[in-house]
Amino acid sequence: MFNINNFLHSGALGPAAEWKGYPKYNFIGGHNDDESIPIKSLKDSIDNIILKEGKTLAKYGLESGPQGYLTLRNFISLQLNESASIKCSEKEILVVSGSLQALDLVNQTFLKKGDTVIIEEENYGGTISRLNRLGVNMVGVPIESDGMKINALEEILKDLKSKDIKPRYIYTIPTIQNPTGTIMSVKKRKALIDLSKKYEVPIFEDDCYADLIFDKERPPAIKSFDKEGYVIYCGSFSKSIAPALRVGYLLADWHILSRILPYKTDAGSGSLEQMALAEFCKSNFNSHIKLLRAKLKHKSDTICNALDKYFGSSADFTKPNGGIFVWINLPETVDTSRLYDLALKEGVAINPGSEWSINTSGKHKMRLCFGNPSTKEIDEGVKLLAEICQKEFGVPAQIANS
Amino acid sequence: MFNINNFLHSGALGPAAEWKGYPKYNFIGGHNDDESIPIKSLKDSIDNIILKEGKTLAKYGLESGPQGYLTLRNFISLQLNESASIKCSEKEILVVSGSLQALDLVNQTFLKKGDTVIIEEENYGGTISRLNRLGVNMVGVPIESDGMKINALEEILKDLKSKDIKPRYIYTIPTIQNPTGTIMSVKKRKALIDLSKKYEVPIFEDDCYADLIFDKERPPAIKSFDKEGYVIYCGSFSKSIAPALRVGYLLADWHILSRILPYKTDAGSGSLEQMALAEFCKSNFNSHIKLLRAKLKHKSDTICNALDKYFGSSADFTKPNGGIFVWINLPETVDTSRLYDLALKEGVAINPGSEWSINTSGKHKMRLCFGNPSTKEIDEGVKLLAEICQKEFGVPAQIANS
Repeated sequence: MFNINNFLHSGALGPAAEWKGYPKYNFIGGHNDDESIPIKSLKDSIDNIILKEGKTLAKYGLESGPQGYLTLRNFISLQLNESASIKCSEKEILVVSGSLQALDLVNQTFLKKGDTVIIEEENYGGTISRLNRLGVNMVGVPIESDGMKINALEEILKDLKSKDIKPRYIYTIPTIQNPTGTIMSVKKRKALIDLSKKYEVPIFEDDCYADLIFDKERPPAIKSFDKEGYVIYCGSFSKSIAPALRVGYLLADWHILSRILPYKTDAGSGSLEQMALAEFCKSNFNSHIKLLRAKLKHKSDTICNALDKYFGSSADFTKPNGGIFVWINLPETVDTSRLYDLALKEGVAINPGSEWSINTSGKHKMRLCFGNPSTKEIDEGVKLLAEICQKEFGVPAQIANS
Repeated sequence: MFNINNFLHSGALGPAAEWKGYPKYNFIGGHNDDESIPIKSLKDSIDNIILKEGKTLAKYGLESGPQGYLTLRNFISLQLNESASIKCSEKEILVVSGSLQALDLVNQTFLKKGDTVIIEEENYGGTISRLNRLGVNMVGVPIESDGMKINALEEILKDLKSKDIKPRYIYTIPTIQNPTGTIMSVKKRKALIDLSKKYEVPIFEDDCYADLIFDKERPPAIKSFDKEGYVIYCGSFSKSIAPALRVGYLLADWHILSRILPYKTDAGSGSLEQMALAEFCKSNFNSHIKLLRAKLKHKSDTICNALDKYFGSSADFTKPNGGIFVWINLPETVDTSRLYDLALKEGVAINPGSEWSINTSGKHKMRLCFGNPSTKEIDEGVKLLAEICQKEFGVPAQIANS
C-alpha cells in the first residue's frame, strides 16, 4: 500500500477528521439564518441572467476578464459608495472566492516567514491561524468599545520602528469587529489613516460584517478617508446573502491590485454565483439586508436573554451592535478551551477564546454565533452550556428553570 | 502616496496588465463552445434545486461538510464508475474550485522547493508555471502517440533512485494529453501502475479532458487499475459543461485525501454551482456530452482543414482524438514565441510551444484552441496566422486564396 507518510514534509498539516455532521447546538461558524435565504428572488434573478447571458459561461471570466464579472463589480462600487462612502471604480475591484481568498491573496503578496503584522489582539480565528501557518509574528493592539486603542497602536509602531522592524500591514475589522463586536469610531478611523501614513504601513481593512449593523448608522469605511492608497479593503456577500455562495471582493488602488492579482491563479471565481448575485443585488440588496438585520437582531436578543437567564452575572458581554456573534467573558475559573471539549461531547459547539486571541486574553472568553440556530435551539443550547459549565466549573452558581 | 514596491519581497510576481478584452481570433485558453452551454436545462435544474434546497445555502458547505455537496459527489462517483471504470465512494472525493485548485492542493501537500517531479515533457502550461513558481525540478518524459514513453520513464526512475532522489509524484494527463492530444494505451496505463508501485512514487492523474473523446472508446482511468492507493485523480466540469463554473474534483484514498483537505482553507467551493451541476448532470450529463463532442469534432475538423488549406505541409499535426486544442509542429525556421508576439498585434492569440514544454522541444510548436471561436473565426484566424507566419518566417511558401 502507498504510504503518504513517506511523502509528507516536516511541517505538513495534520490529517482532517472525517466529517460527521453538525453538532445539535451549533454556535460556531459564520452560518446564517436559514429562513432568510431569499430563495424565490435568487431563483428569479438566476432565471433572468442565465437566459440573458448564459452563453458567456463558455468563457473563463465570462466577458469580464480576470477581475470578475463586470456587472457585479459595478454593483459593489455603487454599494460601497452608498453605504461606506468609498469612491472607487470597478477597475479597482477584484472579485474573489470569499473573503478568505482575499486574506490569502494579500498574505501571499505581502508576507514571508518571519515578517511582522499588527492586528487587533482579539481577532478572527481564521486570520490568526493563517498568520501562524505562515510563520508571521503578530503584534496585538488592545480593543476598546470604540475600536482599536490608538495610543497603543502608535506605541507599537514607534517601538517597531526603533527596532528597525517594518510591519507589513495593520489588519483591522473596524465594523462589528470579530469577535468583540465593536464598531470603530470615525475619529479613530481617521487617526488610523494618519498613523498609517506617518509610519508608512498599509492598512488591511476587513469589512465583512459591515452590512449587518442592526440600528446604528454604518460609519464611513477607513478606506473612505484614504487619499493616498494606504488601504486595502475587503468585503463579502457571505454574511449579507449566503455563506455557501463563495463571493467576496478586494478593493485597492490599481498599482496595488495589479501586484495581488497574479497570485489569483484559479482561473476566476465561480461565475454563476457572481451572475446570480449581481442580478439579485441590483433590485433586492437593500430590502433583503433590512429583513436579515431584523431577523439577526431578534436572534441576538434571544441569545442575550438566554445568557442572562442561564448564566446570570457569570456571563459578561456587550449586546451585539450587529452581526452574528456575541463575545462573552466568563469568570476566571472557567477555561473555555476545556469547556469547548466538554460541550462538544454534549452536542454544543462554541469557539474557545484562546483561538480568537493572540495572547492569553481569550482564556476565559468564548464566541457564540447565533445566526444559524433557531431561537428554540439558541435557548436550549445556552441552557445546556450553562449546565455543563456549572457542573465542571461551578459557574454559574444557579441556573434558572433547571 | 503609498508605494507597494517598498513592501514586495524579492521574488514577488510581476504586475498584472490591465485586461483589454479578448483578441479577435482567440486560440488560447480552455474556453468552450458558446452555443453548447445548456442554458435552458441549467436554468431548469437551478430552479428545481434552489426551491428544494435553497435554505441550505445559509451554511458553509451546505449540509455536506468540507468535501463538497454530497449529491454532486455521488454523481461523480457513479459517473467515474460508468465512464472510467473507477470504483470509488463519495467519501474519497473532494470537490474543488476547478482542477487548478486540485493542482494547488496536491502541490501544497507534497512539494517543497527543490523537490523533483516527473511529468510529460510537453505539458499543460499551468502545471509547468506552478512547478516553476514552487522551485520544483521537473524531469520530462517524452510522449509517443500512445502516451508517455514507458521505457524512458523507467530509466528516469532508476536514475533518480541511483542519485537518491525521491520524485514526489509522476504527473500525467493520460487522456487527450495537453497539449499533444494523445491517449495513453491501456497497456501503458497498467505499466505505469507497476512502475509506480515498484519505485514507490505516487501518480497524479489529471483527467480533465477525458469526457471529450470524439469517437474512440474512453479507456479505463489509470486510477481504475490502482489497488493500493498510488493514484491521486482529478477531473473537472469546466471542459464538459462550462469553464466559468469553477467546479472540479480530487479523488484519492481517504488516508491521502485527509492530508490534502486541510490545505483547502476557502470554506468550501461555490455551492450554487455545485448544486446546479449535480441537478443538471443527474439527467442531462450524457446527452449533453454527446452533443458537445459532436460540436467540438466539427470545430476540430474546421481547424484541421484550415491548417491544411493555409499552412499546407508546413503545419505538421495529428488530428485531435477529442478535446479543444491541436498541437502543431512548424518548420525549424519558425520561432513560435516570436510568432506569438507578432500574431497578438494582429489580433490572433496562440500558445507558443515554449510555454507548453519543459525543454526546447516546443520551440517550433504551437497550441491552438478551437473550442470557443466560431468556424468562421477559425478559418479567418488560421489564414491570418499563416499570412503573418509567411511574412516573418517565409513559411508557408504559398497560401491558398490569398
